[in-house]
Amino acid sequence: MTQVAWLMGSDSDYPKLEKGFQTLNELGISVEGRVLSAHRTPEQTREFVTQSEAGGVKIFICAAGMAAHLAGAVAAHSSRPVIGIPVAAGALNGLDALLSTVQMPPGVPVATVGIDGSVNAAVLAAQILGTGDESIAKKVIEWRTAQTAKVVEKDKRLQQKLQGNG
Amino acid sequence: MTQVAWLMGSDSDYPKLEKGFQTLNELGISVEGRVLSAHRTPEQTREFVTQSEAGGVKIFICAAGMAAHLAGAVAAHSSRPVIGIPVAAGALNGLDALLSTVQMPPGVPVATVGIDGSVNAAVLAAQILGTGDESIAKKVIEWRTAQTAKVVEKDKRLQQKLQGNG
Amino acid sequence: MTQVAWLMGSDSDYPKLEKGFQTLNELGISVEGRVLSAHRTPEQTREFVTQSEAGGVKIFICAAGMAAHLAGAVAAHSSRPVIGIPVAAGALNGLDALLSTVQMPPGVPVATVGIDGSVNAAVLAAQILGTGDESIAKKVIEWRTAQTAKVVEKDKRLQQKLQGNG
Amino acid sequence: MTQVAWLMGSDSDYPKLEKGFQTLNELGISVEGRVLSAHRTPEQTREFVTQSEAGGVKIFICAAGMAAHLAGAVAAHSSRPVIGIPVAAGALNGLDALLSTVQMPPGVPVATVGIDGSVNAAVLAAQILGTGDESIAKKVIEWRTAQTAKVVEKDKRLQQKLQGNG
Amino acid sequence: MTQVAWLMGSDSDYPKLEKGFQTLNELGISVEGRVLSAHRTPEQTREFVTQSEAGGVKIFICAAGMAAHLAGAVAAHSSRPVIGIPVAAGALNGLDALLSTVQMPPGVPVATVGIDGSVNAAVLAAQILGTGDESIAKKVIEWRTAQTAKVVEKDKRLQQKLQGNG
Amino acid sequence: MTQVAWLMGSDSDYPKLEKGFQTLNELGISVEGRVLSAHRTPEQTREFVTQSEAGGVKIFICAAGMAAHLAGAVAAHSSRPVIGIPVAAGALNGLDALLSTVQMPPGVPVATVGIDGSVNAAVLAAQILGTGDESIAKKVIEWRTAQTAKVVEKDKRLQQKLQGNG
Amino acid sequence: MTQVAWLMGSDSDYPKLEKGFQTLNELGISVEGRVLSAHRTPEQTREFVTQSEAGGVKIFICAAGMAAHLAGAVAAHSSRPVIGIPVAAGALNGLDALLSTVQMPPGVPVATVGIDGSVNAAVLAAQILGTGDESIAKKVIEWRTAQTAKVVEKDKRLQQKLQGNG
Amino acid sequence: MTQVAWLMGSDSDYPKLEKGFQTLNELGISVEGRVLSAHRTPEQTREFVTQSEAGGVKIFICAAGMAAHLAGAVAAHSSRPVIGIPVAAGALNGLDALLSTVQMPPGVPVATVGIDGSVNAAVLAAQILGTGDESIAKKVIEWRTAQTAKVVEKDKRLQQKLQGNG
Repeated sequence: MTQVAWLMGSDSDYPKLEKGFQTLNELGISVEGRVLSAHRTPEQTREFVTQSEAGGVKIFICAAGMAAHLAGAVAAHSSRPVIGIPVAAGALNGLDALLSTVQMPPGVPVATVGIDGSVNAAVLAAQILGTGDESIAKKVIEWRTAQTAKVVEKDKRLQQKLQGNG
Repeated sequence: MTQVAWLMGSDSDYPKLEKGFQTLNELGISVEGRVLSAHRTPEQTREFVTQSEAGGVKIFICAAGMAAHLAGAVAAHSSRPVIGIPVAAGALNGLDALLSTVQMPPGVPVATVGIDGSVNAAVLAAQILGTGDESIAKKVIEWRTAQTAKVVEKDKRLQQKLQGNG
Repeated sequence: MTQVAWLMGSDSDYPKLEKGFQTLNELGISVEGRVLSAHRTPEQTREFVTQSEAGGVKIFICAAGMAAHLAGAVAAHSSRPVIGIPVAAGALNGLDALLSTVQMPPGVPVATVGIDGSVNAAVLAAQILGTGDESIAKKVIEWRTAQTAKVVEKDKRLQQKLQGNG
Repeated sequence: MTQVAWLMGSDSDYPKLEKGFQTLNELGISVEGRVLSAHRTPEQTREFVTQSEAGGVKIFICAAGMAAHLAGAVAAHSSRPVIGIPVAAGALNGLDALLSTVQMPPGVPVATVGIDGSVNAAVLAAQILGTGDESIAKKVIEWRTAQTAKVVEKDKRLQQKLQGNG
Repeated sequence: MTQVAWLMGSDSDYPKLEKGFQTLNELGISVEGRVLSAHRTPEQTREFVTQSEAGGVKIFICAAGMAAHLAGAVAAHSSRPVIGIPVAAGALNGLDALLSTVQMPPGVPVATVGIDGSVNAAVLAAQILGTGDESIAKKVIEWRTAQTAKVVEKDKRLQQKLQGNG
Repeated sequence: MTQVAWLMGSDSDYPKLEKGFQTLNELGISVEGRVLSAHRTPEQTREFVTQSEAGGVKIFICAAGMAAHLAGAVAAHSSRPVIGIPVAAGALNGLDALLSTVQMPPGVPVATVGIDGSVNAAVLAAQILGTGDESIAKKVIEWRTAQTAKVVEKDKRLQQKLQGNG
Repeated sequence: MTQVAWLMGSDSDYPKLEKGFQTLNELGISVEGRVLSAHRTPEQTREFVTQSEAGGVKIFICAAGMAAHLAGAVAAHSSRPVIGIPVAAGALNGLDALLSTVQMPPGVPVATVGIDGSVNAAVLAAQILGTGDESIAKKVIEWRTAQTAKVVEKDKRLQQKLQGNG
Repeated sequence: MTQVAWLMGSDSDYPKLEKGFQTLNELGISVEGRVLSAHRTPEQTREFVTQSEAGGVKIFICAAGMAAHLAGAVAAHSSRPVIGIPVAAGALNGLDALLSTVQMPPGVPVATVGIDGSVNAAVLAAQILGTGDESIAKKVIEWRTAQTAKVVEKDKRLQQKLQGNG
């Protein structure tokens, strides 16, 4: 059973999102990826959301650029948590997408992550599922412990480099 | 037969839009006003758009604030011209609404007017209808001639005032 | 057992947040509210987060203005979902708080809602808990159905008003 | 008879606009393209607008960058609908052009599309003409149906790709 | 003979500009004030500019808000120096007017002063005339010497106040 | 005798300014170029301004990036017209330089042109000198007539190109 | 002997700065306040900076709005630390002052605090002096401990209030 | 004994900071460089700050991008001066980092330098230490005198170049 449905407004967004899909894999979360546009395929989007929710999908992740309505459109048709990723595209480089995604009216939230923040969308999805499933919550802790170790490792290397310069 | 359907995301927007409704009246254009939200009443919005278009409505005007998706949602469900009015609301005072309204993806335009620009939405609607109906086109010319006269009158009064100061 | 811990950087933020606390109440979610500052009481913040998580808190909501670090600081010390509310305060009116809250580095997400978006923080918290507890998920659906009814009611009143004007 | 007059402030803008000209062709709309500057050839601009309108042109499309006054200058001299395309140029990358195009005073609207949005300008022109000519309105519907099909095709390809990865 | 022609897009701008008119008076510069709109009275604007220049006007000052095209429109029709005052009006509070005024294309400059900067427009006009008339240049020096004295006076008063507090 | 002194905050700005120097040459205006920094060589800047003004310089042009204080510093020490060119440099790409240059306090104007607008600075300098010297004013008119001819030429070429496509 | 010289560009800024002067008092730091303008009294500013530095002043605090050059001008004439306070004034409400203060060229730093951040300027001055004087460093610690206590007190009051509501 | 501790949120920031480390070397200031993240290694950051302060570190320099909390987190745990460098990274290119760094709440200042301003962070650190150690203060003066000489040299070269062109 798919836990997360990941929609993107354009297939050209996928390279920016790939790392997020990998992160979901690392965290053991099942995901279905779709190209669906709030403006160009609104019917397909609505049907997919309704069917996914009926089929047991717990979280929607929506990535879109410019006047990024995809997350809001999904949130309008679902009562599951919707995570929005503003994508940097076009002349305004994501500021438009950020404001279009986050400034939702009262009652219809979109859980917005940073511009092009696909890894954070994946981690947040796992954290959300973890509130009802302790095995996922543990995986998030392990994943973040590994992440901390990488920063510690980079810190050591910089110290060696700077002492070598000294 | 209604020529223009005017949607607003919230009834609290109406006072800002009233002057635009009056302008449509002055220009002899019939209009139906509705409170419909892309996020809170998406089904009603979609049904209204489909029925209005079937019923002969030629233009949609959509006013919304913040992550203003209303015009885009209507444009997704109609092939008639959609005029978007970004409404100044909340902490960002309309910049969010402007970008959410105007930065639409290729193929699904929203004809955006200035922030809180309800009069211009009305005049634009009349200009659009005027491309197919010369009697409306003439009314626009008369309306603008009267507007020019008002500016000329204000110019005269300023000149008198400044000479009085001299 | 408390389900949600709601931190605010300053007690002067509370009036803006009150509606969100009420919404949690309406949704049957238990909440503990605290004034804790990432900068002025960092130790207390850290201890509270650790103890709350150990005590079973599932979600943190953090509201702060200006260089709003509170949500990020909590996210650094917890692996539970953290919802961030940028508060409009000071000369930049929330743009600073929005960017400080949402633009988190990979691996440490903050689920950001709109500026001053306390109701949406509450609804999102309920949606998150609803992924593991269907009774909460149902309450969200009921809450939103009631919300939809209110918009429909406002729509009716506008139509009556406009016809009265006609 | 030419239906649309398309002005651009500089010939260097043309490569960005070419796709819009093609879209008008696909939609069967006749168009005349001109390099005319509100600031460097104001007399020529004014004369062209007056003559075009007398000659039956129904819509003006104006593309300009920076302090983009071209659409406003045309709107000042015509009562036909004027579509403005803000062009990303110079250090501010189109934000200046967007605000200069959309924030028109009451009574003189410019129907603004997104930055560099030449395809949307073309589609909007066809939608506008379609309010008075059902054969054009049908072409818009066909064009958009084809566009939807392309998104559906891309969606299929992504699904295949992701399953191949699975 | 009038030395400076001062145009404003709306008579509602006059209260913001009054101090600038007074400054021109203090500097002994003759000025004619007019309400002329680039968009609503374009013909009148063009005629006034042409006649004023023929009549010996040396400098144009243009104040306008929002998509502020007035200075650019005058600069398009005159080769005299044009000073632009962006006026804070509407939801964006002058940022739109600033960019619309200053970001002119090569060859058609507008000498832009700060938002609502009517006093600086007047002083700049006097400095410009002073390049060809040393009596005006001297008046600018005197005016600024008096201004310096006022700041020195305020400095003294603050020192007294702070010592009184000490 | 030098008519215009052109200061730049860094020699790395010169390539952006070269076209402006050429324009002054075309207009027959004598110019002295200097690298002077409001922050790194404040004494040299002040002395140069004082001596230049005493030596008959009529206009200062100042180009600087980031917290661009050069024009303001020169304006503080001279009563001649100061033209400011905000230079796009660093992460904010000229928005900082624009605001630092244009938003001067009452009494100390800087005549600001667009970001990187060196040609316009040169044309404006000629227009200013032209208020006191009709032979320069004529050269500006000739220069702009030639510029208009270039736009007309480009317009012809586009028309030929588009007809070739037809 | 005065430890800190506090300059402001206008006496109208003083009410916003008063709390900062009080904070210096609480921290036992001697301060001299002056109204000095980088643009209107540049000579007085330069002389005051030179004399203050010779007289033993260790730190300059400079508060100014709009194109806020005061801190930069002082930094150009002193090698002591300069703290800049951007003041919210005029249409852009401090964004211009922030960028004009912080974006200094390499070699001439201004230690910038938040918009209208007079208390932080005072605390930072004490921290700086504390690097060479442990008695001042201790006072900073005490001041901040008292501040922490206030937040803890506010936290208690909110908890009581919320329990009273429960 | 280390005088300055320099933290960076990511080792990828180091190339941008290298010039600042060199400047500290030129000024004879000892420095320890570390990769520490407010979000990914919060415990290590806190411990390092506490130990460094106990070990005699007088100043912290913190460089971070996006929602740049590092300087604020260090300031929360230390009463020594904290210098913040906003790093240009991600889609918003440093505007987010600038606001996240500078807009600190009252009582917890961060001395913010310009975006990517590593040289200025180093010079400011030396100026701060110079308030308690005249030998360092002298080195700052020498360093800046050398810097001035470089600008004067560049000025000469430009003058030669322009005369060569003449």
